[in-house]
Amino acid sequence: MPVQNESTEATSTGSRPSGARRVPLSPTLAINEAMARKRREGVRVLPLGFGEAGLPIHPALARELAAGSDRGAYGPVAGSAALRAAAAGYWSRRGLPTEPGMVVSGPGSKALLFGLVMSLGGEIVIPAPSWVSYAAQATMAAEGAIQVATPPGEGGVPSPALLADAVVRARSQGRSVAGVVVTLPDNPTGTLASEQTVRRLCEVARELDLVIVSDEIYRDLVHDPSRDVPSPAAYAPERTVVTTALSKHLAAGGWRIGVARLPDGPIGETLRTDLLGVGSEIWSSAPAPMQHAAAFAFSEPPELVERVDRSRRLHATVAAAVTARFEAVGARVPSPEGAFYVYPDFEPLRDRLRADHGVRTGADLTELLLERHGVGVLPGAAFGDAEEALRMRVSSSLLYGETEEQRLAALATPDPLTLPWIADSLDRLSEVLAAVTAPTPLAAPATC
Amino acid sequence: MPVQNESTEATSTGSRPSGARRVPLSPTLAINEAMARKRREGVRVLPLGFGEAGLPIHPALARELAAGSDRGAYGPVAGSAALRAAAAGYWSRRGLPTEPGMVVSGPGSKALLFGLVMSLGGEIVIPAPSWVSYAAQATMAAEGAIQVATPPGEGGVPSPALLADAVVRARSQGRSVAGVVVTLPDNPTGTLASEQTVRRLCEVARELDLVIVSDEIYRDLVHDPSRDVPSPAAYAPERTVVTTALSKHLAAGGWRIGVARLPDGPIGETLRTDLLGVGSEIWSSAPAPMQHAAAFAFSEPPELVERVDRSRRLHATVAAAVTARFEAVGARVPSPEGAFYVYPDFEPLRDRLRADHGVRTGADLTELLLERHGVGVLPGAAFGDAEEALRMRVSSSLLYGETEEQRLAALATPDPLTLPWIADSLDRLSEVLAAVTAPTPLAAPATC
Repeated sequence: MPVQNESTEATSTGSRPSGARRVPLSPTLAINEAMARKRREGVRVLPLGFGEAGLPIHPALARELAAGSDRGAYGPVAGSAALRAAAAGYWSRRGLPTEPGMVVSGPGSKALLFGLVMSLGGEIVIPAPSWVSYAAQATMAAEGAIQVATPPGEGGVPSPALLADAVVRARSQGRSVAGVVVTLPDNPTGTLASEQTVRRLCEVARELDLVIVSDEIYRDLVHDPSRDVPSPAAYAPERTVVTTALSKHLAAGGWRIGVARLPDGPIGETLRTDLLGVGSEIWSSAPAPMQHAAAFAFSEPPELVERVDRSRRLHATVAAAVTARFEAVGARVPSPEGAFYVYPDFEPLRDRLRADHGVRTGADLTELLLERHGVGVLPGAAFGDAEEALRMRVSSSLLYGETEEQRLAALATPDPLTLPWIADSLDRLSEVLAAVTAPTPLAAPATC
Repeated sequence: MPVQNESTEATSTGSRPSGARRVPLSPTLAINEAMARKRREGVRVLPLGFGEAGLPIHPALARELAAGSDRGAYGPVAGSAALRAAAAGYWSRRGLPTEPGMVVSGPGSKALLFGLVMSLGGEIVIPAPSWVSYAAQATMAAEGAIQVATPPGEGGVPSPALLADAVVRARSQGRSVAGVVVTLPDNPTGTLASEQTVRRLCEVARELDLVIVSDEIYRDLVHDPSRDVPSPAAYAPERTVVTTALSKHLAAGGWRIGVARLPDGPIGETLRTDLLGVGSEIWSSAPAPMQHAAAFAFSEPPELVERVDRSRRLHATVAAAVTARFEAVGARVPSPEGAFYVYPDFEPLRDRLRADHGVRTGADLTELLLERHGVGVLPGAAFGDAEEALRMRVSSSLLYGETEEQRLAALATPDPLTLPWIADSLDRLSEVLAAVTAPTPLAAPATC
């Protein structure tokens, strides 16, 4: 559906018709580019805005891409047999039995999510807050997003009771609701929804005949590796699509390769056909050399498993340290449980921020941090939070270093917080947070 | 806009709402998969359906991809500075002065075309016949396609007079028309529109304020290398977008990397902003390692230029031979001028085909060729031709061999038609065409 819904004017002429899509640059990519600009201007930047793993490609993975570099032929839209078998093994080892025929690959899980949303049509329920692109994609490719708040303390999953209310209400108004998107573990909050919440969500989805799209791109980065990720594919296998990619746990965001696991059965068959149709007209297939490397990655060879283990520990350690720095100035921060995000709330400091800096909204606060102090973070509003909420998403993963050498050192050491560049960045963060939140000294009384 | 336009029913529930996209698999990819199936069934297949260059990746290009295999970071949506500069050089050397800021890359020119159509909105005029995906994309991402016939003997460009009529008529009905797509040289007909036609098209586009999208993916495969490609970017520079990729002249279809050249000036600036917005929410960027290799390719090092020269000669030689085989049985065939396509018309044989085989439509004829004889081609109707037209697109490029060794031999030899596997395929083609078109011997009179 077009973003603009005005009826077409009879006098419309030319290159900017009413149906034209006005899609602003994705905020996460925009902040990445804004940071790069600031750096070029010579500003000392603390890059906490962009959701990138901030780690090098493992040499074994690069080697496999090089080995696939002579693959120039178009292949099946769904992806190579080798990649689909490897992804099926990956999910099967995680308690989600998967046949290769259930797997569809694409140029990033973002593209697959777009194709799924387009295939579903109707309105799509998404958590509030949630990753910036869900709402944008639902507006571009379907009939829009319905944002439903997450339960207290749990990110990534709409509150099941509120979900049911929202869908019933929308349908009673003649609107059509097709699916619900969840993120496990969550971006932006870094939390992981409980099994109980996911089970209840699945019950609601089944009762209301909703397809569940479970974005599990951070699955292997749950900080406590003994903790299970409660995938809706386990509780509503007939209606759950799972997506993942190499972007986060293997730090290959720039490679653009993702996979979707479609449900077995009639819902899955219809969705698969539709998704392949959409993919065939937008991207044809995932790049063949990347497919070759991704097949290797999803087979989980020991050297990559070890790399993911080290990455997980690093993300957990630094996210916890960032959390502590925010808590030290009085912000409230949900304990991060996965990925490399922290989602502090400055509500306790609202009065002071308003009095000292005129801050009324989350965007006021993040603009202050960026323009005055070179700290790049994204306001909660970018993720669907209320404008006035003083929450922000902080990515801790771009603190690991500026060079490959520094990043490898961060992966290698048992105590990354002692590395000078990480310690410096954390101290700089504390300094900025203190400057922004410190009580203003009383103005000296005027003398006359 | 949704493919289905029924109003949403108030009672709609669940996973297949009225807005859901039903996009069938792209016919060109579908025929590729059908051929693979036939082969697995043990059928001797003559693969003439799929628009793939059928040649190996040049080792120097593969080496560059390998050299970029450690690039895992997300980069700018528009692509790396190196790729944009290289593509700007490529176009500038072809008489289209280009600044790097005018270049946007993406995961294939198909994805860029989708993004452009979505950015334009409104209805999109496309030539009839034309590449299968233009109409599908206009239906998925904009308000549909208006097919306008090409001038006699020229493919890839809607007849300028008919274009003007169609746009004026659509607008008088309150519909909004945003752009026109052209293909230079053309797929499916293998012809190249004349400079005069392109100039007139540009005048009409300017008068009617239409953006021109010029798909020039086959530009470097014009059979006569001394012949200039008349790009609308030369005659209507303020409103023409040009797209190209590595898929055809460098046979890297499976790599999924393309570039668009946006016009300089206000139309280009708006389109660029919109295209980057759409790209940021669907594909983020082209894969970083492919960008690295594509920067090398668009810098046109001598070894790749030589490869393209050899490829061009091979395509020209085999397309001409295929043309002769079709002409020998009485089909009419426009002389191929570029790419690796032949577009024969069996109209002169209509009565016989109907009497002997019940063939009434192009699809009847291509089904007969596939099911009875293992020859895979696509009917003209897949490209927007009339159902009853007995035209078909024949890709000549998958005859070069089944192995890399055979394909390299085809590139190396001055006379590829003498290579046994190519000669055999051409003879098999003649045999099938003879069997399908030969006059039926009179039935022996019944004796009793």
